[in-house]
Amino acid sequence: MGDAVGVWFVGARGSVASTAVVGALAIRAGLAEPSGCVAELPEFAGAGLAPLGELVFGGHDVVDVPLVKRAELLAAAGVIPPHLPSALATELAAADADLRQGIRAGEPDQRAQLRRLTADLEEFRARHGLDTVVVVDTSSTEPPSAFDADLAALEAALDAGEAPLPPSSCYAYAAFRAGCPLVAFTPSPGPRLPALTELAAERGVPWAGSDGKTGETLLKTALGPMFAQRALRVLSWSGINLLGGGDGATLGDAANVGSKIESKARGLERILGHPVAGPLHIDNVPDLGEWKTAWDHVHFAGFLGTRMTLQFTWAGCDSALAAPLVLDLARLLGRASQVGLSGPVGELGFFFKDPAGSDEHRLSAQFDALVAWAGWL
Amino acid sequence: MGDAVGVWFVGARGSVASTAVVGALAIRAGLAEPSGCVAELPEFAGAGLAPLGELVFGGHDVVDVPLVKRAELLAAAGVIPPHLPSALATELAAADADLRQGIRAGEPDQRAQLRRLTADLEEFRARHGLDTVVVVDTSSTEPPSAFDADLAALEAALDAGEAPLPPSSCYAYAAFRAGCPLVAFTPSPGPRLPALTELAAERGVPWAGSDGKTGETLLKTALGPMFAQRALRVLSWSGINLLGGGDGATLGDAANVGSKIESKARGLERILGHPVAGPLHIDNVPDLGEWKTAWDHVHFAGFLGTRMTLQFTWAGCDSALAAPLVLDLARLLGRASQVGLSGPVGELGFFFKDPAGSDEHRLSAQFDALVAWAGWL
Amino acid sequence: MGDAVGVWFVGARGSVASTAVVGALAIRAGLAEPSGCVAELPEFAGAGLAPLGELVFGGHDVVDVPLVKRAELLAAAGVIPPHLPSALATELAAADADLRQGIRAGEPDQRAQLRRLTADLEEFRARHGLDTVVVVDTSSTEPPSAFDADLAALEAALDAGEAPLPPSSCYAYAAFRAGCPLVAFTPSPGPRLPALTELAAERGVPWAGSDGKTGETLLKTALGPMFAQRALRVLSWSGINLLGGGDGATLGDAANVGSKIESKARGLERILGHPVAGPLHIDNVPDLGEWKTAWDHVHFAGFLGTRMTLQFTWAGCDSALAAPLVLDLARLLGRASQVGLSGPVGELGFFFKDPAGSDEHRLSAQFDALVAWAGWL
Amino acid sequence: MGDAVGVWFVGARGSVASTAVVGALAIRAGLAEPSGCVAELPEFAGAGLAPLGELVFGGHDVVDVPLVKRAELLAAAGVIPPHLPSALATELAAADADLRQGIRAGEPDQRAQLRRLTADLEEFRARHGLDTVVVVDTSSTEPPSAFDADLAALEAALDAGEAPLPPSSCYAYAAFRAGCPLVAFTPSPGPRLPALTELAAERGVPWAGSDGKTGETLLKTALGPMFAQRALRVLSWSGINLLGGGDGATLGDAANVGSKIESKARGLERILGHPVAGPLHIDNVPDLGEWKTAWDHVHFAGFLGTRMTLQFTWAGCDSALAAPLVLDLARLLGRASQVGLSGPVGELGFFFKDPAGSDEHRLSAQFDALVAWAGWL
Repeated sequence: MGDAVGVWFVGARGSVASTAVVGALAIRAGLAEPSGCVAELPEFAGAGLAPLGELVFGGHDVVDVPLVKRAELLAAAGVIPPHLPSALATELAAADADLRQGIRAGEPDQRAQLRRLTADLEEFRARHGLDTVVVVDTSSTEPPSAFDADLAALEAALDAGEAPLPPSSCYAYAAFRAGCPLVAFTPSPGPRLPALTELAAERGVPWAGSDGKTGETLLKTALGPMFAQRALRVLSWSGINLLGGGDGATLGDAANVGSKIESKARGLERILGHPVAGPLHIDNVPDLGEWKTAWDHVHFAGFLGTRMTLQFTWAGCDSALAAPLVLDLARLLGRASQVGLSGPVGELGFFFKDPAGSDEHRLSAQFDALVAWAGWL
Repeated sequence: MGDAVGVWFVGARGSVASTAVVGALAIRAGLAEPSGCVAELPEFAGAGLAPLGELVFGGHDVVDVPLVKRAELLAAAGVIPPHLPSALATELAAADADLRQGIRAGEPDQRAQLRRLTADLEEFRARHGLDTVVVVDTSSTEPPSAFDADLAALEAALDAGEAPLPPSSCYAYAAFRAGCPLVAFTPSPGPRLPALTELAAERGVPWAGSDGKTGETLLKTALGPMFAQRALRVLSWSGINLLGGGDGATLGDAANVGSKIESKARGLERILGHPVAGPLHIDNVPDLGEWKTAWDHVHFAGFLGTRMTLQFTWAGCDSALAAPLVLDLARLLGRASQVGLSGPVGELGFFFKDPAGSDEHRLSAQFDALVAWAGWL
Repeated sequence: MGDAVGVWFVGARGSVASTAVVGALAIRAGLAEPSGCVAELPEFAGAGLAPLGELVFGGHDVVDVPLVKRAELLAAAGVIPPHLPSALATELAAADADLRQGIRAGEPDQRAQLRRLTADLEEFRARHGLDTVVVVDTSSTEPPSAFDADLAALEAALDAGEAPLPPSSCYAYAAFRAGCPLVAFTPSPGPRLPALTELAAERGVPWAGSDGKTGETLLKTALGPMFAQRALRVLSWSGINLLGGGDGATLGDAANVGSKIESKARGLERILGHPVAGPLHIDNVPDLGEWKTAWDHVHFAGFLGTRMTLQFTWAGCDSALAAPLVLDLARLLGRASQVGLSGPVGELGFFFKDPAGSDEHRLSAQFDALVAWAGWL
Repeated sequence: MGDAVGVWFVGARGSVASTAVVGALAIRAGLAEPSGCVAELPEFAGAGLAPLGELVFGGHDVVDVPLVKRAELLAAAGVIPPHLPSALATELAAADADLRQGIRAGEPDQRAQLRRLTADLEEFRARHGLDTVVVVDTSSTEPPSAFDADLAALEAALDAGEAPLPPSSCYAYAAFRAGCPLVAFTPSPGPRLPALTELAAERGVPWAGSDGKTGETLLKTALGPMFAQRALRVLSWSGINLLGGGDGATLGDAANVGSKIESKARGLERILGHPVAGPLHIDNVPDLGEWKTAWDHVHFAGFLGTRMTLQFTWAGCDSALAAPLVLDLARLLGRASQVGLSGPVGELGFFFKDPAGSDEHRLSAQFDALVAWAGWL
């Protein structure tokens, strides 16, 4: 059995993190089954993971609506069962006490900011007597960053009073400085800037990312191998994603969606062995609320070139799909940290659209690799 | 490089076998690419398979429409490119010369019938100087058979002038007696009756079956593992299959469809680890001709029980999906025979809805097992 | 403005009637908008209909779970907003007081039974000082009835102590005897047996039916005219309906589904002018609860016979679709009664799969006829 | 019976016009049924339309590939039956003789160009002794035009050696100058610029447009009224159109797609009575060839606000859908001209995404108006 693990959410009052916290508390209280939790599968029973019921939650956010209020909104939207917010009101209020102010726009001194974020993590770890605190970034998607200098140059820029890092990379910097493993659950730059990757290596901290695989891409990486294994030639793979909620609004902005679409498209070419034509849209449809619908159209050639099609429609609740995965990742990466791993953990690629440390995108191969790795832990 | 292999189709003038013959001849003549041919993937390059261009075709059928005429009908139906029938007229006429009369309804003496079928195979093998002739059953689906006696009882019944075997098992009997490996590409009883399984073992002949996996079940075995790996609980998996052509008419008959639906349903329960509710229909829609459309609706529960759905529509050409697989199977099973294997070859389960000799239904795991086996060959 | 109208539900504690009652009370209390209510469209403003907020509810049912409890179950199933049951608890309890015991299985004397049902209606009308009480049958679907005698023969059979009527026709008999107009919202025999039709005529009572059009058939009658108007030849129209809830269980029973499938298929042939091939399935999928999903596949030939397809998936909440229509029908048929109409009201065919008194199935034509009729009222 | 009518296609060698010509010739020769031809429905039997078999074809195009070659390409793409090109080779070669060079890029003198186009029309009419020549624009979509001057200003600009008109409006100018009615089957500016509309009125010529309704919009105008009539509130209507062929390439260009998306969106708001959210994409997917697939997702609120969805997938052959309509339009507008109508004919709105002279977008209402108008003709 692993040691107790702290989970520190960036975007702690957002839908994904709130759902994860409510869910973990509900499962601990015996009010729900751990459905959707990969790490609860029998394959992971011997991996020494921190029990789901013993996770301790904290986090950063830029808004301050109480978690119980967030839970009520999630219940009204059909993301969580309606009886949970009142049943868990006490526990949610307690979790509120461990949430801290995130990055304020216009905070002028990035060096000071980073010190504050790092201190928040260290205090949380000390306050709860935790060995391991895993930082999980579930905040809104940011546009790509052009900052590609090395760590020394980053430090020099910070010393010079500059603010070269986007917010996601600030949180990654603070995590690594505090010796905390990091899960990059969004496509934001986060730990993937060269200076941050270097910092993780220098500090011997493991991290995993990026961009949680919960919908269309999940299906692509489950279905793509079928076409490859059957020697069916995919001529085009077109897709549209309709999203409501905050995610829809963020991704409706062309600048942000760039990084997302890029990470969505990458895997299919690897799986099929050739580039694949076809549009890929992400659209904000506010009335869908917390729900998302993806439609994909695959046009392929079989024997003697005969043309055929596969279509699918995936209608899911974004936060309900993502929340169990961030709990899984916190427990798995926490364990990786405890056994001394550092750098990007490619074996966690199963969870991501754009797996750091791995070129494998086929879902079943990723699962096999994850199970083998968990056996080794 | 393997030795030349003969391919003997039961139902040789049917859509699947005709498409396979036209396709193999077209590929040999440089008129088509081998798309859809699994055995042409790089993974199988070193397996010593007979080259696609060197297969020799013969077969049984109960009708006698010339192959070139069948090819013209397939072209009109959009199954094969319109220019192939005339381009391959000579080769198709030559193949006609190797086709023999199948089982005539009302032929009274089953023992004599079996002798005739066996002799047809032996003569074909001798005529072309082949080491290996693989019999591939692509004829219409038959209802289940209740004949469960052992081989000795079967021989005694045949000696007594009885006719205990359904046609598919007659062809299997003849194949095994002639020392020919057998591919059961339909859900008919064929080699799966106890007496036939015993005969294959006694004669040291390998066989593979049953019921080619080309549509809805292919998708189920590609997608089912995704739900299991992500700990998403499938509540129901409902499906409808619309088929035209001869297959539609045969499967529209409730007696025949029984064995098909059974073999379609079996795998999902194995993959998910629990029985799954939901109707499964196979309907004859004559105007669809050679095409088939399957729609599946998967209702599943994620985190905290939240309900979500996946739907897919698969619109394919049945014969174009099946034809390359029977060529693959003939080459792979021919090689298995050459290296001395006997009995059901579970590693060929990748191709079947109801794999004999294997309990594995997950498509990627089946592919990995097939590749490993081919490497060992 | 029309006079106050009573609405007497057969199956008053079922999902459709409960949703209708909750909804009408919520709209009256200003807790909801009248979305889905056709009679609230501007086209019906001058038709003299009883205001939605002034309907008085009563009914028969064979179970006695309180309406507030039914409302809570509907809220948990996502059919109605979660806050309504407690907000309307008082009103729902009041409505409970107007519900009476329905037809008990094994009640031996059908004559006595009919007297009791009739008396229930008359007492309700008197108790609330209503001019008009519309009976709306929303109970479970029954199998077809073979009773085709005339009214005199029916009365003789009842006098002889026989029990020739199915329950739905008992309720229709009681309605007509009490001078109450009747809405047959199910495909059960109800008022469509010859003796009942005769009774309605004799008593000068209007009625409407049958089988509310809320899903697949609604779409068929909206889309079918498009194919006809564009001279596109429909080759086959295949469909599958997945239903949970009580409706799914009832219709999963082959005997009951007969009448439903018949009434679903009838309209399309009328619209297209020729019979249409294609399977039509209704399946019970219990985990869908109050929700239903229909998938239809239309295969059609265009210019020069080119084959094309239309598919649709309708995912709806059965009771939420049906409930506003029964309120509409009660108000419209109540008004028809007030202006002295009798017999089947074909102009209400807009609401039904199998319109009594009309051969028109095209949705837009039905709407135009309804609006014209309402203008005349 | 109406007089013989000439049909002059702009874009005469494009897929739509070629399919229309092949089809009309095939129907005349008894090689095909007139499926998809609205004007062949019994409702139009007494309207005095020119018989389908007596249409005479000519046209402009900028390329010069022979029609029989175009027909072979259409057959290879599955748009027309494979036997037609050779069966109709003589007739197609004859039609080639009536095709003329379209607008050459860089032709400097627009006044001269317009004279040449007009003369082509007048010579065609004279050569075949036709009373009526209907010009049908089926050429590629152009971007919107900013030219909004009146006719006098246009003439002055032309006299001044300027070239203010986009190609589609040049063809419209030539048609009106020659006294020919015009069908604007594309969303290009064509006759809709103020100066052109004025010219048609001055010359007393009828015209119809614009943008043929053959796919997603056809479905929208068939389904939209259903939501309105049932008082179901559409929250969002999202759609994606995948197109191959030349149309896909043209519309993949953002400048051209603007006018198309605008005309697609306009109708729904009219039908529903309020603006509707939701993305609308048109994408070029070259491997689809002549085929197009549209997927729409409708999210709507029913009783008490309960959320439900309708999805549809329309998989059609663009030219096969459009070709019969251009024949219908030529015959109907030809008749309108013969009876002396002028200006935009709103009653032909049934055929268009963006009907000129009408605000009605509901398909059934448009059909009723068309039938009434044809009865009056």
